[in-house]
Formats: sequence, structure tokens, C-alpha cells
Amino acid sequence: MSLCPTFQTTVASIPTHVQHCLETYLANAQEEFAHINPLVTDAITVLQDFVLNGGKRVRPAFVWAGIRAGIESHEEGSEAQIANLIAEGNTPASFLHVAAALELIQACALIHDDIIDASDSRRGNPTAHRTFETAHRTQHWLGSAEHYGISQAILLGDLALSWADDMFFQSGCAPEALQRSIAPWRAMRTEVIAGQMLDITVEANGSEFVSDAMDVITYKTASYTVARPLHLGAALAGASPAMQRKLQDIGHDIGTAFQLRDDQLGVFGDPAVTGKPSGDDLRSGKRTALINFALEQANSAQERHMRELLGNIPTGPAGEEAIGLLRTIIVDTGAAARVDNLIQNHSDHAVTQIRASAFSPSLRDELIGYTEALTHRTF
Amino acid sequence: MSLCPTFQTTVASIPTHVQHCLETYLANAQEEFAHINPLVTDAITVLQDFVLNGGKRVRPAFVWAGIRAGIESHEEGSEAQIANLIAEGNTPASFLHVAAALELIQACALIHDDIIDASDSRRGNPTAHRTFETAHRTQHWLGSAEHYGISQAILLGDLALSWADDMFFQSGCAPEALQRSIAPWRAMRTEVIAGQMLDITVEANGSEFVSDAMDVITYKTASYTVARPLHLGAALAGASPAMQRKLQDIGHDIGTAFQLRDDQLGVFGDPAVTGKPSGDDLRSGKRTALINFALEQANSAQERHMRELLGNIPTGPAGEEAIGLLRTIIVDTGAAARVDNLIQNHSDHAVTQIRASAFSPSLRDELIGYTEALTHRTF
Repeated sequence: MSLCPTFQTTVASIPTHVQHCLETYLANAQEEFAHINPLVTDAITVLQDFVLNGGKRVRPAFVWAGIRAGIESHEEGSEAQIANLIAEGNTPASFLHVAAALELIQACALIHDDIIDASDSRRGNPTAHRTFETAHRTQHWLGSAEHYGISQAILLGDLALSWADDMFFQSGCAPEALQRSIAPWRAMRTEVIAGQMLDITVEANGSEFVSDAMDVITYKTASYTVARPLHLGAALAGASPAMQRKLQDIGHDIGTAFQLRDDQLGVFGDPAVTGKPSGDDLRSGKRTALINFALEQANSAQERHMRELLGNIPTGPAGEEAIGLLRTIIVDTGAAARVDNLIQNHSDHAVTQIRASAFSPSLRDELIGYTEALTHRTF
Repeated sequence: MSLCPTFQTTVASIPTHVQHCLETYLANAQEEFAHINPLVTDAITVLQDFVLNGGKRVRPAFVWAGIRAGIESHEEGSEAQIANLIAEGNTPASFLHVAAALELIQACALIHDDIIDASDSRRGNPTAHRTFETAHRTQHWLGSAEHYGISQAILLGDLALSWADDMFFQSGCAPEALQRSIAPWRAMRTEVIAGQMLDITVEANGSEFVSDAMDVITYKTASYTVARPLHLGAALAGASPAMQRKLQDIGHDIGTAFQLRDDQLGVFGDPAVTGKPSGDDLRSGKRTALINFALEQANSAQERHMRELLGNIPTGPAGEEAIGLLRTIIVDTGAAARVDNLIQNHSDHAVTQIRASAFSPSLRDELIGYTEALTHRTF
């Protein structure tokens, strides 16, 4: 694959382009850090390992889909709009840099989430705070290795978040294009942080309102992962406000279905496929939308069982039995079917909108493919 | 005082302008959050309390000094350069917004530092993570109150950092002015995070190199607090590259002297004036430049005493005795005088450069006043 994207580059090839872009950025950053003091270069190595090894680049892919959708649906026609964008001073590479910048926001989100969730591993590797903790132990350094790990990981997330902004504003896009996309850029960052704040607030206050769980889905996932990336791409590409709104709607549908599918997998997923223990959300007792639907509809015996077992699954065969019972209750209350229907409705709605759009057949196919893959996935 | 700044507004009046700017920004943010979900508005209240109550607004003041210096030293003359800046699309208010944005970076830095240092209070109020922790306890929420407090404070810092960028890019400055100032804007954020990473690395690995302590001073304080803010202001105002470098040099001198003065106060400061326990740095055992100079020059008996007592001060009268002994050693090794000289040299060098500059007499007086206040302060 060529390392030079064009405005017609397929969405599917974006992850490879993004990878190259991030490699270059972080290699330069490594040099910048070595200049400050060699003692801090290890931190950049941790960031490189984190950002460059893994990640499906879903958010950059949706930015690119938004860019192409904005161009292809333009009232002046796609050729004319490409000429306009070039005349303004944009290049495909400058747009690609904006798309890649989302991976640095995501790096911050994951590094900080892993501290918040006290997670030991991510994508099969130790989390950032555990990596720093291990380095501290291995070198027999002073003080608490655990606290050191958390401290460095907080700062590493901050660095990634700062650099996301740097990458966005130094992308090489025309100032007018950046100006158009500041609103979704801001909204995306604010909403994902607000969504995460809401998530831990709801976990702490014990809310079992479906509406709270749906708000977490909207802000932490749907908006951040799909709706705002599409919006951002469309704004960059000079799409009309109506088209920007339509892409947000499509993104909201895809993102909501995607997260509801995650709720299902957290209860019914096959550990051999998901790579997580069976009934992961049942073990943690997390009040997902699916669980809250079930609690809302449960009769008193069902509710009693749920409250006894959620977050309190015994080990061994008794655990599998408890998970089986909870699964039966979630099906019997109609919650499972309700979430199935919601996923289908959101997914169908997105697909209908995509089919009816003025996008090229190849972009329509790619977007529909993404929608189906994300909302019917088994892992 | 008028709420409308001009390009000639004094540096001394910037804190009041910045306060107004931040109040408006955070009031709008509060509304944005209420729209997401009322459960997350408390977080913005914590941020408002943190940002709006206290803080000397040193960094915005230096940005403003850089702006005025850039204008007043311009080869076309100050009137002509103001006309150029206005023609480009800038207003004094737009520059003020950039200056105010530094307080949001600072909010992130302090909120995250307080987690890293496990501090309970800041400016006489509970730190952000403790405030969230207390709210959790008061409401008898689920899970660990302490972990909840840290988690919310990590996210609140992230939000402040994101909003700093939003405030910068939505300041209303001309795109050309923003483009000119992206380099110092990026450097400032990267350097303060790198400096903080270096600080905790050096604390963990037990480095007693003066050069490591001086690097921490350079990046965590001198660059972030003075040199880059001056640089940023000068770049915004269209100063020549040579003037931008000169202001960085002046800032480096002021900032280094400022932090070395802090090292002195941490050993010799009067608790009645500093508001901190006597010999704060001796109690913590922190390897400041001052301590590392002393360790470097100590004879074997002095070194033994230092290693026994640093970070290991007993309580009660024996503690005051130990602090007295350490102070004597720090004086006797010549370390105290060495730091005194360094402060004087950096401060003198800055003042000489300021006096020799093309800045207006009023700006020169203000900058010299700041230099003296920061480098000879007793608190």
C-alpha cells in the first residue's frame, strides 16, 4: 500500500496509514525527550509500545469515513469539493494526521482508565502503570513501586492528551478547516471525559436507572467512538451543517448498538471468543443498560437472585451455575430481547440512512460493513 | 478597573482580567455539563472552586509581559505593530484568553500533582481528590472512597488540560497569531510534564546529581512558569525570533532564581511566613539542587549526618535540633552561599537584560518588580 493517501483512499486502509503517522510522530517525540534528560525516555518507550502495538484504529477510520462522506455528498460534487479543499491548503496527509491524533486521545483514555479500573493487562500486555511499577521494582528504586507506577502513568496520559492537540493543530490542515472542526474536536474530548466521570459516579452511587446507563453509552462510547469522529471528518471536509448532523445521527446509532452489543457479550459472550471470563459483567456487578433493564422488569424472586449474585459470583462450578441462573433471568425478564431489538433498530436505522445517502457505493459498502461488524461482533 | 483590556494594559491588572475570563468560561462549561447529566455537574463545581479561588496568575502575567515586550520592542514601532495585530484580526481580549488558558493547564498540573504527592490540602482547601473522596463518604456511596476520589481527580485534570487547548484555539486570535505561538504552546505543555516525570524518576532512583536537580528546575519550573509564557506572548505579538529567544533567556533566569529561592525556603524558611513546617524539604528528604550541592561538598562526617537525618527528622524538640544541625551543615559546606550566588546571578542577569531592552519604562519596571518579588520572596 502506498504511504501517500488520497482523498479517495478506502476506510479499510486507514489503520496502516495511521500506524505510519504515529510511528513518525513518536520517534520525533522520543528524540525531543532524550534532549530533555535521558531518564525520561523510558516513558516514551512505554507510550510507543502502547500506541503502536495493537488497537483497531476504529476512531481514525470513522474520521476518514466522515471526510469521504463530506466530500462525496457535497452539493458542488465530489471533484469540485476536492479542488476546493486543496485550494484552501489541505492535503490528504493533513487530514490523515487529524485522524491519527484520535489515537493519542485514546491512549490517554485507556492509560487513565486502566488506573481507574486497577487493570493489570490490556491487549495481552501489562498496563502502563504496571509497566512503570515493574521497572521500579526491577531497579530496586526507592518508595512505593505501585504509587510510582500510577504517578508516571497519570503523567504519560497527560502527555498523550497534550500531544493529541498538538497533532491536530500541527496537522497541516488549512486554518479554515481546523476552525470548522474545532466544535466536534472539543465536544469529543469533553464528552468522553464526562462520560467516564458519569460512569464512575453511577457505579459509586449505585444508580440502576436505565437512563443513566444509556447516558454513559451515549457519551463514553457512541459519541466518542463514532458520532464525533464522523462529525469531525465531515466538518474538516466542508460538509454542510445538515450533513454533519446526519453523520452524527448515523454515528450515534452505530455507537449505541456497538456498546449494547458489548453489554450482551459481557453476559452471554463465549470466553473462548471474547478472551474474557464468562459473564464478565455479572462477576463485576456492573449496572449496564442490559442489567438495569432486567432489574426493572424482574419479579421479586428474580430481583432477589440478581441482587444476591451480581458482583458476588462464587468461584468454581457454583460460579458457572450462578452465571447460568442470571442469564436465564435476564432472558426471562425480556431484557435480553429488549437489548437485541435496540441493537437491531439502531443498526437498521444506520444502514437505512447510509443506503439512502449520496455517498459513493464503495463508501456505503464500507460503512455498512463496519456497522454490521461492530454491532454483531462476537468478541 | 475596566473589563476591557487594551494592548497597553499593565501586567499587574492581568490577574483580575484573567479571573473574569475564567469565571465566564467555567460558567458556560457548567451549563454544558448539566446538559450531559446532572450527576457530573459537581465535578465542574470542584474545578470552579479550584481555579477561581486563589492562584497568583503568575503564568498569565508573564504571557502578558511577553505580549507587551513583543509589541514594544518591534522594529516597526509599537503603534504600527498594534495596528498590524488588529489588522490581522487580533484583539486584546483574544490575547487575554490565551493568557487565561495557562491557568487551566496549571489546574491540571496541580490536581494531578496533588494525587502524585498524596497531598491533603492546597491553598488552605482540601485537594481535588480529597474533595471527591469526602463527597463519596458523606453520601455513603459504594466502593473505596479514596479510589473514587483519585479517579475523579484524574479525570478532572484531563478535562482542565483539554479545555486549556480549547481556550487557546478558541481565543479569537488570528489563525496566523496562533500558528506563530504553537511552538511555545506545545513546548510549555510537553516540558512541564517531562519535568514532573523527571522529578519523580529522580526521587525514585535516588539521584543526587546536581545536574538532574537543575534539569527538574529548568523544565518543571523555569521553562513552564516564566520562559515559555514570555515566549508564547512574544510569539503571539509577532516579535522577531531574536526577541523571542531573548525573552526565553530572561525567563529562564527569572524562573531558575525563583525555584532556587524555593529550595532555600524549604530549608531556611520561617514557618510563620511560609505557612509550611520549618525545614519542609529536610523533613521530606527531597534531593533539591541545594541539598545536592551540600552532599557534593560535605566531608564524611557531614555527609553521614545528612544521610542519617534527611527524610528522617524526629518529632518534637529533637526534630528542631536535627533541622538546626542540617542547616548548619548546608551553610558550612558552602552550598547555601552557592545557591545565594546563583540566585543573585540569575536575577541580576535578568534585570540587566530587561534594563537594556527596548521595552517601555513602565513594562521594564513591572518586569523588574516581578523578578525581585519572585527571587527574593520570603514565602
